[in-house]
Amino acid sequence: MTNNPSQPTGPRHPLLASLPDATPLAEMTSEKLDKMAVEIRDVLCNLLATRTAHFASNLGVVELCLALHAEFDFRRDRLIWDTGHQIYPHKLVTGRYSQFETIRTRGGLMGYPNPAESVYDLFMTGHAGSSVSTAVGLRSGDILTGQPDRRTVAVIGDGAFPSGIVFEALNNAGASKENLTVVLNDNKMSICHRTGAVASYLDRLRNNPFYTGLKNEVVRLLDHVPMFGDPAERLLAQMKEGVKAGLHGGMLFEELDIRYIGPIDGHNIALLRKYMKLCQEAEGPVLLHVVTEKGHGYKPAAEDPVFFHTPPAFEDRGGTPVTRGSEGRPPYTTHARDAIGEAMKRDDRVTVITAAMCQGNKLEPVREQFPERFFDVGICESHAVAFAAGQCKTGMRPIVDIYSTFLQRSYDQIFQEVVLQDLPVVFMMDRAGLTGPDGPTHHGVYDIGYMRLFPNLVLMAPGYAAELPMMLDACLEHDHPTGIRYPKASALEFEHTPAPIEMGKAEWIREGEDGTIVAYGAMLEQALDAAEQLEGELSVGVVNARFVKPIDHEMVAKSMADGRFVVTLEEGTTVGGFGSAFLESAADQRLDTRQIHRLALPDVFVEHGDRSDLLADASLSADGIASTCRNAASNVSV
Amino acid sequence: MTNNPSQPTGPRHPLLASLPDATPLAEMTSEKLDKMAVEIRDVLCNLLATRTAHFASNLGVVELCLALHAEFDFRRDRLIWDTGHQIYPHKLVTGRYSQFETIRTRGGLMGYPNPAESVYDLFMTGHAGSSVSTAVGLRSGDILTGQPDRRTVAVIGDGAFPSGIVFEALNNAGASKENLTVVLNDNKMSICHRTGAVASYLDRLRNNPFYTGLKNEVVRLLDHVPMFGDPAERLLAQMKEGVKAGLHGGMLFEELDIRYIGPIDGHNIALLRKYMKLCQEAEGPVLLHVVTEKGHGYKPAAEDPVFFHTPPAFEDRGGTPVTRGSEGRPPYTTHARDAIGEAMKRDDRVTVITAAMCQGNKLEPVREQFPERFFDVGICESHAVAFAAGQCKTGMRPIVDIYSTFLQRSYDQIFQEVVLQDLPVVFMMDRAGLTGPDGPTHHGVYDIGYMRLFPNLVLMAPGYAAELPMMLDACLEHDHPTGIRYPKASALEFEHTPAPIEMGKAEWIREGEDGTIVAYGAMLEQALDAAEQLEGELSVGVVNARFVKPIDHEMVAKSMADGRFVVTLEEGTTVGGFGSAFLESAADQRLDTRQIHRLALPDVFVEHGDRSDLLADASLSADGIASTCRNAASNVSV
Repeated sequence: MTNNPSQPTGPRHPLLASLPDATPLAEMTSEKLDKMAVEIRDVLCNLLATRTAHFASNLGVVELCLALHAEFDFRRDRLIWDTGHQIYPHKLVTGRYSQFETIRTRGGLMGYPNPAESVYDLFMTGHAGSSVSTAVGLRSGDILTGQPDRRTVAVIGDGAFPSGIVFEALNNAGASKENLTVVLNDNKMSICHRTGAVASYLDRLRNNPFYTGLKNEVVRLLDHVPMFGDPAERLLAQMKEGVKAGLHGGMLFEELDIRYIGPIDGHNIALLRKYMKLCQEAEGPVLLHVVTEKGHGYKPAAEDPVFFHTPPAFEDRGGTPVTRGSEGRPPYTTHARDAIGEAMKRDDRVTVITAAMCQGNKLEPVREQFPERFFDVGICESHAVAFAAGQCKTGMRPIVDIYSTFLQRSYDQIFQEVVLQDLPVVFMMDRAGLTGPDGPTHHGVYDIGYMRLFPNLVLMAPGYAAELPMMLDACLEHDHPTGIRYPKASALEFEHTPAPIEMGKAEWIREGEDGTIVAYGAMLEQALDAAEQLEGELSVGVVNARFVKPIDHEMVAKSMADGRFVVTLEEGTTVGGFGSAFLESAADQRLDTRQIHRLALPDVFVEHGDRSDLLADASLSADGIASTCRNAASNVSV
Repeated sequence: MTNNPSQPTGPRHPLLASLPDATPLAEMTSEKLDKMAVEIRDVLCNLLATRTAHFASNLGVVELCLALHAEFDFRRDRLIWDTGHQIYPHKLVTGRYSQFETIRTRGGLMGYPNPAESVYDLFMTGHAGSSVSTAVGLRSGDILTGQPDRRTVAVIGDGAFPSGIVFEALNNAGASKENLTVVLNDNKMSICHRTGAVASYLDRLRNNPFYTGLKNEVVRLLDHVPMFGDPAERLLAQMKEGVKAGLHGGMLFEELDIRYIGPIDGHNIALLRKYMKLCQEAEGPVLLHVVTEKGHGYKPAAEDPVFFHTPPAFEDRGGTPVTRGSEGRPPYTTHARDAIGEAMKRDDRVTVITAAMCQGNKLEPVREQFPERFFDVGICESHAVAFAAGQCKTGMRPIVDIYSTFLQRSYDQIFQEVVLQDLPVVFMMDRAGLTGPDGPTHHGVYDIGYMRLFPNLVLMAPGYAAELPMMLDACLEHDHPTGIRYPKASALEFEHTPAPIEMGKAEWIREGEDGTIVAYGAMLEQALDAAEQLEGELSVGVVNARFVKPIDHEMVAKSMADGRFVVTLEEGTTVGGFGSAFLESAADQRLDTRQIHRLALPDVFVEHGDRSDLLADASLSADGIASTCRNAASNVSV
């Protein structure tokens, strides 16, 4: 048997393959863990050749993950990975190596922590910032249930760190005095480059003598500070405190009674283990500041971590990623971005605000072109909305561009700062609907219901590409709050002259005699396909509803008068959404709702998978809709 | 004319009475402003004799308010009072003295800032923490619109300060480098005594030499710190920074690039004016730490600011407040508190979490009895919910006791940390419905709609007092998330043997042949009154719906089969609430919804006023319901 590494005879990842769960890591030397890190990176790079997945963030935490599992036993100890998209190494070392190739595919591993998969996953996460709060709660519960020996660790990135809930949690953790380790994984990045004062602060911490190795020299200097026989001893003590603080940094945390340790190199497993032991011995809450490199170990990713956050599938040919395939039609996001850019070009009052989603919202060109009217506030959705309200009050016309599921984080500000004041802020709700492989933390299926509760708000959704810029223009001309929702999907393009946007008016696309399909938003595409499929069998009209609030009451009445049935479509759940608004309108008009069939997503958490498959499950495919029409036509009970 | 002060011949408040708006304050000496402070306190004490209103918080900011208006011109400059319940002195000096006696009465002045009343009120506020964000937005907008000379001030209490959004705003303000003054009004209180690490931090700041007057001595000491001719000059510079910081405190803010000034005495107008000038001259954002006493100037209030936050109407007889009148039946809040106490007594796993509303939720006795299982996390609703989720995961059974309108602040945590994980957290939604004199910022009229969107969640509302503890017990026995909503109102007590709580089952209170009133929650009382009123005229059944999710489909079918009409009642809006859930159920069962009449609050922001008046406006009084039944019975269109 030759020892040629290019023809391996054993498994490609012998260490990972032999790991039943994370327990053996405790007995391994740091050198062996370093070898395992190499295997993990190989798995990650292989995966990325085949599909879009979170990449750079996972490459960055390989050593941190290994050190954590080596020093804690997370079958009993508590570990929360904030945001959760850096969970891949954790999955690989907790018994899921053999299933790993299924990640982010239907029925396979989730791309985020999932308690259904493993005892090592405590919470299904995906939204940023809540890890410290849940960790404080876990610690509190473990004390109350008489299990104080269970240790608690939250790992949170510097991108998530400025989220308000983190501050709320630190405020409570500091006061609780309970032991708790918060690992601040500082890679100088959100998905995009991070912004804000906390970011600058972390940059300064990296330059402190503790990190740069000059600690001993400082201690020597300190010894030279003279003591005075003055009555002002209290003051001097305070000065010494100040000096200490200035030296070891972390005053932001120390002032909140959180002990600060670091920063330390997050790619040195031996060092990480040493400091984790230190954290375990500490009394009270500790923040361990770990410096990592996003994309570490794969040069192109380390050099361009923004692109490599969730890159398209590629094959590594000499380090140059080659994109495989491409979508035909541009997604709604691109149309939204272009519409925003056009509006900003035309009107100096228009600004755009993103909460660390510059890349996801494809706003880079807008940022380049209008740097003074582009605001990335970091993962601070609550602030984003109240900030927009403040701008609006001065006469500006802010566009808040936030994913549907993340907009939940500013619900109270939408209520109080925008809608109650009746300010013309425009909400662009991207990723409204099923987000595919990201799964339930990211599906944006509640916004129709939670937004339409508020007075003053006008809510709309485009059914096709050309409509999006028209809608944005209509919003910007409207003197009240507005919202536009659109999914993570390519936008319909078809031969059609759009009717002008009129507030609260639907667009009739085709007439039908037997029944009508009323689609809210992007479901129009499936509606048109279904109507076409039914041609010769049933004459079915198609309505592009455009508005859920105010809903077009005349459209409701006409669609119900036109035929024997109405099928409503929406990429949201059956509860409280467009179909319910349609029912409300019909019932209030004393129309017979027995002919209405609401097609929507079921009232359960929809798993990850291809959007089209998930839609089909809910009969929101052309086939499903056509079949619903057939049943409706034959089972009319009036 | 004698000069006897006990028989005033002029107006009682000559300075206030002669003030058209705040502009004359700029020309007044601080001594004259001190006299005006006396008048303002007199107005406040007079008002409190006649009605429940925010009291201690307003007494505490009299001098601060006068100094602000003396040094800024808030017709152009921007002033946001965070939370807004300390707005009375501001109203008194901005042209609303003559209307002041109408405050918190229907059609009168609002108890919070209101842009409809005055150009001096920019935002209608009521929820804590958003002032800094809106101020950052205002500043940004003023820069973009070419009005950089408009100054911006946010006044925020130490109670609101730990709210996450404040940290998000400071993170952005620090990075923006724009001029902005944040006045931290530190009275050592939330509504209750404040908690958390920020509170301890502020306590420490008060002891720093700057505040205690030892500053000069410190500077002298600093001069004695020797300089070394060492290469480590960088380190030394850092040490000096550290010393400076240790001296002047405020590192928490300085680390975020916010200049910290203070603490200073918030009842010294001359001093306040001096520091406000300093803030105006500063470059970049400044935090001015002002120490005030809640209830200042009225001894009983200063001594018991918790009671005097919103005391019942009283007459000042020798300083002893005498409560006038009393409610007959106890409010739902009392029943909820008692039920929580009972549950905690019976089951060690039960905890209760409040977000600074210990008093409002009447939880003081619970706090006394079970201090280890009582958690006041401060005004940190997002944290409260994620913290509960963490506790729950360890086997505890946390009850989250938060007002309906404030629960909006944790919407994303309800989604991700609780419902998505299917954890049995119990949400007690107090103040669900119209809160009366507080008005639209406090009405809790959206929770039915926003909570029922989520899978896994069971949502209920008691129709009468005896039901509340039964419901809480049912929640605690249920292994999934649950919620109970109840209004700020006295709970119905009547001769009735409650049916046991069965998940998703309504309670039939009385049968009727002509139609049925289906009430969700406390509206049961009005339903019973209406049915009684109709006796002899119409035979109307009454259903206590109990659940909105899952709604009782059999009840829906039976109520529709029983008579010719169904009237649904809820203390929520017409959009997406209980009536909509009823329609969804009826439509999905292919029942004829033309007989359903939904009575609910209109889809507008309901103003402040007596709850019963506001309900009557929406036909949610016994008369209104009876009248709706009569119309429904005579206009059945089937």
